[in-house]
Amino acid sequence: MSEKHDHDSHYHELSGHEGQAKIAELVKGIRIAMMTTVAKDGTMSSRPMAVQDTPFNGTLWFLTRRESEKVEEVAEDQHVTLTFAEPKDSKYISLKGVASVNQDRSKIKELWNPLYKAWFPKGEDDPEIAVLRVEVSEGDYWEASGSKLVMLVKYAAASLTGGKVPVGEAGHVAV
Amino acid sequence: MSEKHDHDSHYHELSGHEGQAKIAELVKGIRIAMMTTVAKDGTMSSRPMAVQDTPFNGTLWFLTRRESEKVEEVAEDQHVTLTFAEPKDSKYISLKGVASVNQDRSKIKELWNPLYKAWFPKGEDDPEIAVLRVEVSEGDYWEASGSKLVMLVKYAAASLTGGKVPVGEAGHVAV
Repeated sequence: MSEKHDHDSHYHELSGHEGQAKIAELVKGIRIAMMTTVAKDGTMSSRPMAVQDTPFNGTLWFLTRRESEKVEEVAEDQHVTLTFAEPKDSKYISLKGVASVNQDRSKIKELWNPLYKAWFPKGEDDPEIAVLRVEVSEGDYWEASGSKLVMLVKYAAASLTGGKVPVGEAGHVAV
Repeated sequence: MSEKHDHDSHYHELSGHEGQAKIAELVKGIRIAMMTTVAKDGTMSSRPMAVQDTPFNGTLWFLTRRESEKVEEVAEDQHVTLTFAEPKDSKYISLKGVASVNQDRSKIKELWNPLYKAWFPKGEDDPEIAVLRVEVSEGDYWEASGSKLVMLVKYAAASLTGGKVPVGEAGHVAV
């Protein structure tokens, strides 16, 4: 799709449903993602977040505390990055997106599972619970190939050929 | 140290050498970190980076390609965040710092190991190699406690009581 790549022959650029299905396959089984938000002082804050156990379809949903640092940060700057790491398989995924927060009770009910009781002992009706929704716009996937990690998948929600998403250069290969 | 925490009893705020030693212990054995930088369009980019196999002493060193997206991004905005994940032990670490890039040949020689040949087949004298140095200013560590992750360590290079580093609030507990 692009001539400037010096990629592994298994490299794919994917978009739309095909890309979503691939991301779903890659993140499947990784229960915790690190979510990075922009802090008020211009630095970036990361923390682990429990991922819903449903196939990825372009949107990621989290339950969180309404009064929390990340909710404040997302209110100021909607950009977030989510990274998924599975060292035992040498699998690394980064997803970029735009986050928003709501308190839709029916969505909270849909996302709720008993494990959340560890954080919200009052249960799903606790008014402190909020929904953090991330619309994923793009993502990258790396996997071990010999002794190095190579980017194997580049995903864009919009078509990669539509010119909206810059295609990586040689430097994206991780060292 | 702070009254507003609703923390696990194993929670510690650490700084200086004691904090460094703790971070060193926590990241030991995690060979790949996800490094997040600020992209030119204001979003954040993450990619896996090989971590040097030396005890953490406040500074992290990486070899990278001089002409790469991350080097360009760090030239524009020095803030970076590094996350370390070890799902099998439910260990998650986030480190914040300030990055700089140089091409100090003696440092490249010191950091070089034969595994880098996968990226730089010309060897350690390849003029494309650069050193990416991250001075870590603070960090957080989470670990599983029952069915949830709790923050157990908050590290600050400067003293936490010096007022330079804001102490987390209840919301930092990951959901």
